[in-house]
Amino acid sequence: MEYSSKTLKALIEAFTSLPGIGEKSAQRIALYLLREGKAQVDVLAQSLLDLQSKVGRCSICFNLTEEDPCDICQDPKRDAHQICVVEEPKDFMALEKAGVYRGKYHILGGVLSPLDGVGESQLTIEPLIERVKNGEISEVILATNPTMEGEMTASHLSKKLKHLNVKVTRIARGVPFGGSLEFNDAITLAKSLEGRAELE
Amino acid sequence: MEYSSKTLKALIEAFTSLPGIGEKSAQRIALYLLREGKAQVDVLAQSLLDLQSKVGRCSICFNLTEEDPCDICQDPKRDAHQICVVEEPKDFMALEKAGVYRGKYHILGGVLSPLDGVGESQLTIEPLIERVKNGEISEVILATNPTMEGEMTASHLSKKLKHLNVKVTRIARGVPFGGSLEFNDAITLAKSLEGRAELE
Repeated sequence: MEYSSKTLKALIEAFTSLPGIGEKSAQRIALYLLREGKAQVDVLAQSLLDLQSKVGRCSICFNLTEEDPCDICQDPKRDAHQICVVEEPKDFMALEKAGVYRGKYHILGGVLSPLDGVGESQLTIEPLIERVKNGEISEVILATNPTMEGEMTASHLSKKLKHLNVKVTRIARGVPFGGSLEFNDAITLAKSLEGRAELE
Repeated sequence: MEYSSKTLKALIEAFTSLPGIGEKSAQRIALYLLREGKAQVDVLAQSLLDLQSKVGRCSICFNLTEEDPCDICQDPKRDAHQICVVEEPKDFMALEKAGVYRGKYHILGGVLSPLDGVGESQLTIEPLIERVKNGEISEVILATNPTMEGEMTASHLSKKLKHLNVKVTRIARGVPFGGSLEFNDAITLAKSLEGRAELE
């Protein structure tokens, strides 16, 4: 009978099941919410419910969004001639947070990884090619992560895109090999964009 | 436009507002929930809603509970002659987790702290005295935290209780001074209970 309240126990267990939250942290959060977080409980619960019901994928760039097309695809101030291809929404977030890119995006949904059974059909590669074929795209910036799979995926995309009369570039490896875009600072990300080079 | 989805942004902000969760962790949790946590989102949202609607205080011991009286106050297997007085529910949880105590509890709701404007009336001291007067209590174990305020509160309670024909004890200071019950291991907590001494 470690917890006197079943509801409290359930909430602590729910928090503990999240990545990076241990039991002690979960307990602290739950008691904090109970003591002084009435408004926060409402907001958090509502956000969770909204997550289920409202968040979908943009049919153009496959980013997370409530509206389709997403804000960025709809934004006339973003350069529609450039597409920056990233693996996941978190990579998009890292680039936007750095504020160093003003074009459009394309979210691949992962990387090619034959060992994990991830092939072309599990990623949004075909829609990317259609975008390039149909649109006014002059450059595709491949910003997959600087990992083995990221490099391989960039190389694969380059082969598929280069006969489409579009410039295909790869972000400079200013980002340390083996890492992930999201853990780099704005300057590193900016340098990796500035130093981008056309793939042969 | 760091986040493409307003809902996702709201959820990340809601998580960031919790104690001990930074923006990066919040982002990781939100994306995790979106990707693979459908069941967890439901459970977490429901637990939060339940927290608001279901969790109250036991009218006897003031612990957090859905039912009044709480499970421990209702449990015939817990020794009704002993009351262990703790500051907060988290202290109760620490003792129960250690599994070293088999009596009843009383949650004070804090400690006396004149500088913070916390006097006797903000705590559940009067109900504790009524419990001792009306009940079959033979011992009150003062398990407030080993801090200045905790010691002062224990001393104050001892003065109020000792003429009520009840043994009043204080947990042994096996627990390091300046700390909090919740950060001690089971053995330390057990020793502090074993070594309890009657207050003069």
